[in-house]
Amino acid sequence: MKANYGRTLLQKVREKYWKEEHRRNHWRRYVMSADTRLKELGLELPSAAAPVGNYVPAVRSGNLVFLSGHGPVGKDRVVTGKLGVDLTVEEGYEAAKIVAIGLLGSLKDLIGDLDKVRRIVKLLGMVNCDPAFMEQPGVIDGASDLLVEVFGEKGKHARSAVGMNALPFNIAVEIEMIVEVED
Amino acid sequence: MKANYGRTLLQKVREKYWKEEHRRNHWRRYVMSADTRLKELGLELPSAAAPVGNYVPAVRSGNLVFLSGHGPVGKDRVVTGKLGVDLTVEEGYEAAKIVAIGLLGSLKDLIGDLDKVRRIVKLLGMVNCDPAFMEQPGVIDGASDLLVEVFGEKGKHARSAVGMNALPFNIAVEIEMIVEVED
Amino acid sequence: MKANYGRTLLQKVREKYWKEEHRRNHWRRYVMSADTRLKELGLELPSAAAPVGNYVPAVRSGNLVFLSGHGPVGKDRVVTGKLGVDLTVEEGYEAAKIVAIGLLGSLKDLIGDLDKVRRIVKLLGMVNCDPAFMEQPGVIDGASDLLVEVFGEKGKHARSAVGMNALPFNIAVEIEMIVEVED
Repeated sequence: MKANYGRTLLQKVREKYWKEEHRRNHWRRYVMSADTRLKELGLELPSAAAPVGNYVPAVRSGNLVFLSGHGPVGKDRVVTGKLGVDLTVEEGYEAAKIVAIGLLGSLKDLIGDLDKVRRIVKLLGMVNCDPAFMEQPGVIDGASDLLVEVFGEKGKHARSAVGMNALPFNIAVEIEMIVEVED
Repeated sequence: MKANYGRTLLQKVREKYWKEEHRRNHWRRYVMSADTRLKELGLELPSAAAPVGNYVPAVRSGNLVFLSGHGPVGKDRVVTGKLGVDLTVEEGYEAAKIVAIGLLGSLKDLIGDLDKVRRIVKLLGMVNCDPAFMEQPGVIDGASDLLVEVFGEKGKHARSAVGMNALPFNIAVEIEMIVEVED
Repeated sequence: MKANYGRTLLQKVREKYWKEEHRRNHWRRYVMSADTRLKELGLELPSAAAPVGNYVPAVRSGNLVFLSGHGPVGKDRVVTGKLGVDLTVEEGYEAAKIVAIGLLGSLKDLIGDLDKVRRIVKLLGMVNCDPAFMEQPGVIDGASDLLVEVFGEKGKHARSAVGMNALPFNIAVEIEMIVEVED
């Protein structure tokens, strides 16, 4: 679906660079643990957030872990606002990345060790936005890219990226996740 | 996330009462059947609603039961309207409770006996609301609280509570649920 | 929930015809392969669409396949627009049918043979619409009807049909699906 025409030279150079970077990093994703990879990316996982209500951050059933919808709750701030009105796609991308870090924090809290992850199975990525906003995939990529960065092939998931008219506390993004883990 | 400052004496008293009530009831949730608990709560389950379309109220796959999105269809009325415009959070809470009762009715229709429930795994709680509405968790709590009332620890689930711009027939809340059941 | 009053003679005749047609076709769904049935319906499956982002069209975990949200991407066009503003329910129904065909294409790509389908488990049907639109079930029926046409009883699924304020690229409908497949 990505056509080649219309790309600027800059885009082409960036792409080439990314591909080389990708090739170089490829083998490392298979030998490094997820925790090492997270450290290398300079990311620190939070503990599971205390849910606001009578529920829990994650439930395991058989080999599947179902994670609650998480918001972009960082160390010192929460990203709020609607895409297409208050936030740019880039800001939304960063918010989705924060969500993914929070999801991994809750997952680690439940299973103890992220190397027990067999596969990131599915994301439902919900973007708080204006009715005219159409770039939900570009926002949720912030989470998808991080998961692939951390888990490599095992991080490649099924996904929906959709627009919501409202989210709790006006958070910018909410994502729920299903993960397959080892016995 | 709940801070202690700013609580009125009344709130503190209520909380203390609730905790004692909770402790007193705790063991009973483990010895009582879900059906007995429902009766004690004065709740009667409806039969599975006839779906409006070419689908079914619930499908079992392995030990998981996936339930269709249910609306707040009570004995003699359907709760319609948008939160933040037509309904208060309290009315939304009651609507979500009605949805949970309907979900349990459909679940019982499929598995025969609610004591076969091993774990309420996940809810996706969708609130019909105004774009400025932010209290989706307070609405979906109506369902979460009931499930924990009925099933105790086994009722604690993962959850998303989000805002929708529109729902079928303008129902106030729609919830879908995943449940783990015995072999 | 469908009342009898208000039906025109034409509707009654159509219904009777449909029921007879249904009875006549009933046994055939059990002896025919899904692929034969698709051919008979004059439908051709596309290959899995290249996802726009760092994710995949479908992931299998155990006997469940989780499919990404798919849009109404037909051979030569994409159905865009909001229900209740730009599109009629009939146009939405057709869009949902195109989505279902795309989902089956991605499923076949992953599992090789649609006769390995044991059960269509669940759809989350998301309709891009105006806040006043209430006929999401009539739209998502386009997907549900096709799945039951192709798989018969095995095609009967749990489902949610809900309204979204915005979808990627302004597509009219997005549907994600869970399917149980053979070992």
